Amino acid sequence: MKKYNFSAGPSILPRVTMEKTAEAIMDFNGIGLSIMEISHRSKDFQVVIDEAVALFKELLDIPEGYSILFLGGGASLQFCMVPYNLLEKKAAYLNTGTWANKALKEAKLFGEAVEVASSKEANYSYIPKDYVVPADADYFHITTNNTIFGTELHTDIDSPVPLVADMSSDIFSRPLDVSKYALIYGGAQKNLAPAGVTFVIVKEDVLGKVSRPIPSMLDYRIHIKNGSMFNTPPVVPIFAALQTLRWLKELGGVKAIEKINIDKAARLYDEIDRNRLFKGPAAEEDRSFMNVCFVMEDEYKELEPEFLDFAVKRGMSGIKGHRSVGGFRASIYNAMPVEGVQALIDCMQDFEKQK
Amino acid sequence: MKKYNFSAGPSILPRVTMEKTAEAIMDFNGIGLSIMEISHRSKDFQVVIDEAVALFKELLDIPEGYSILFLGGGASLQFCMVPYNLLEKKAAYLNTGTWANKALKEAKLFGEAVEVASSKEANYSYIPKDYVVPADADYFHITTNNTIFGTELHTDIDSPVPLVADMSSDIFSRPLDVSKYALIYGGAQKNLAPAGVTFVIVKEDVLGKVSRPIPSMLDYRIHIKNGSMFNTPPVVPIFAALQTLRWLKELGGVKAIEKINIDKAARLYDEIDRNRLFKGPAAEEDRSFMNVCFVMEDEYKELEPEFLDFAVKRGMSGIKGHRSVGGFRASIYNAMPVEGVQALIDCMQDFEKQK
Repeated sequence: MKKYNFSAGPSILPRVTMEKTAEAIMDFNGIGLSIMEISHRSKDFQVVIDEAVALFKELLDIPEGYSILFLGGGASLQFCMVPYNLLEKKAAYLNTGTWANKALKEAKLFGEAVEVASSKEANYSYIPKDYVVPADADYFHITTNNTIFGTELHTDIDSPVPLVADMSSDIFSRPLDVSKYALIYGGAQKNLAPAGVTFVIVKEDVLGKVSRPIPSMLDYRIHIKNGSMFNTPPVVPIFAALQTLRWLKELGGVKAIEKINIDKAARLYDEIDRNRLFKGPAAEEDRSFMNVCFVMEDEYKELEPEFLDFAVKRGMSGIKGHRSVGGFRASIYNAMPVEGVQALIDCMQDFEKQK
Repeated sequence: MKKYNFSAGPSILPRVTMEKTAEAIMDFNGIGLSIMEISHRSKDFQVVIDEAVALFKELLDIPEGYSILFLGGGASLQFCMVPYNLLEKKAAYLNTGTWANKALKEAKLFGEAVEVASSKEANYSYIPKDYVVPADADYFHITTNNTIFGTELHTDIDSPVPLVADMSSDIFSRPLDVSKYALIYGGAQKNLAPAGVTFVIVKEDVLGKVSRPIPSMLDYRIHIKNGSMFNTPPVVPIFAALQTLRWLKELGGVKAIEKINIDKAARLYDEIDRNRLFKGPAAEEDRSFMNVCFVMEDEYKELEPEFLDFAVKRGMSGIKGHRSVGGFRASIYNAMPVEGVQALIDCMQDFEKQK
């Protein structure tokens, strides 16, 4: 039976990423050593990280003046690194879900952190649109895709102050206007690589403006100066990220993948809307193209465990919804083929027929 | 030609660690999914991290009251996490090399950090023995093995205040009396796993005594409470670490590997002392069993590039010394077989015969 991995993260990666990484673990570049054991300062690895940086720039059309970093620690470490480096007096946060809320919480340790709007009262089922960002904020922080609640900001918004975005779960899913952002970060374990590497795209001229001392490992300027090699970077996850970036370029880049992502999401949401058993809790205009949340209609609620079992038996892996939303969540990141989405739709339709 | 990897880190790992990791990247546990794409919250991965923790406890004979963490960010992040969590007023540091010095530098951001002794004036060629640790220090920080300078503290010292040790490059190389330490940490990329995971062994009752607020990701208590899963841990490096721990147990544990390590180091140092071309810069009693530094005798100094070339052509990889010491450095971590050490000795002898 073909298995489809709908996990929210770590999550499905292109087959070629796995194959090339497994290959390089046994013998990297034919040098007779493993990618796990080579020095990060070797020429062979420098080529890997340089190409990964170059593909970030090319695929996301990143303008001059930005640096790309590959760090350890996860996006959660960025929740404190961002205020450490950028918050002098006040920061503004848009509270669109669990992760946005966690980011906001960390910022409060460093200064005033204003929640400009929140959809918490509606279990984060939509992205607030009416809010004012204080003009004197040092930055405005958003979470572009809310993995748990299945909502997504589909455009690059305008911000009166430097814009910081957690794009852990939708980076590389669509073209971006990077010039609108001061800093973009994310854990790599959705659209890029196995867990263990975090990317940061940072506009250099927003740094160096806070008065507090910053520990070296938390200081973006130190990582920029050292080309992500102030300490030993996560070599294998970076190698894997490079394979995914090459795969994405081969496929036609972010414009091509956006088309595929829109098509996959449309198919699945159409089925959720059509199928009398299911409904989607997220506001229609904010529906995520990456994490499709759905629950059973109230009158069929008790069928949820049965459908989960039915779907798992047909090879749908990782579709149990997060406990905050319940029901189901199908994460259909870049690497999920349309066949996987179709297999899930078939499940939903076959289950409906039985009821 | 058989290649031997003498790199200081990332460095040689047991062959089985590479094989099992490559295998699990293609299919983990026969579940039809890759270790790169499974959820860290899946039962399959919980088993991995639980066994890794259990093997830490078993192999190092860790007493009750200690927690074992697997974190991201590298040992360099611990340089600031240690003072963040433990330094209220004053900390004491033993300056035995580049990394010890970096750790000390970070501590200074958090309070008074006293250098109790330093061998910097002798290019860190020995480990200071005569020093007094202030009785009112919150902790005393040591670096047990100095990768760059090839010195090592071969015993578990007594400290009048909680003892904190960076054991990045000699963990699991010998039995430890963990009860003498409040906290032991290290990057995994020497004796354990590929770069990207950091281990922390921490005595729980030393935590919670500082008054400053600690960002969640830098707070050991939060990681303990969440079993290293406050955020997504580096899944693949942790899986690889488990394979190395199993290999070590199979081999007879730290007592068995210590015997092998002493034998390997003795052979190489004996050759350095015997061979008229070479000498070792580290003080004899402090010679590292992990990183064997050697240079050419002054009258043969100009032969260094020639020997490097000679050795590389015979499959000795990564033996160029760090620029701070020059000459050569053979890192002979746990996974380096005695055959590798012998091959290097043969190189040194054959080169000597030519001169």
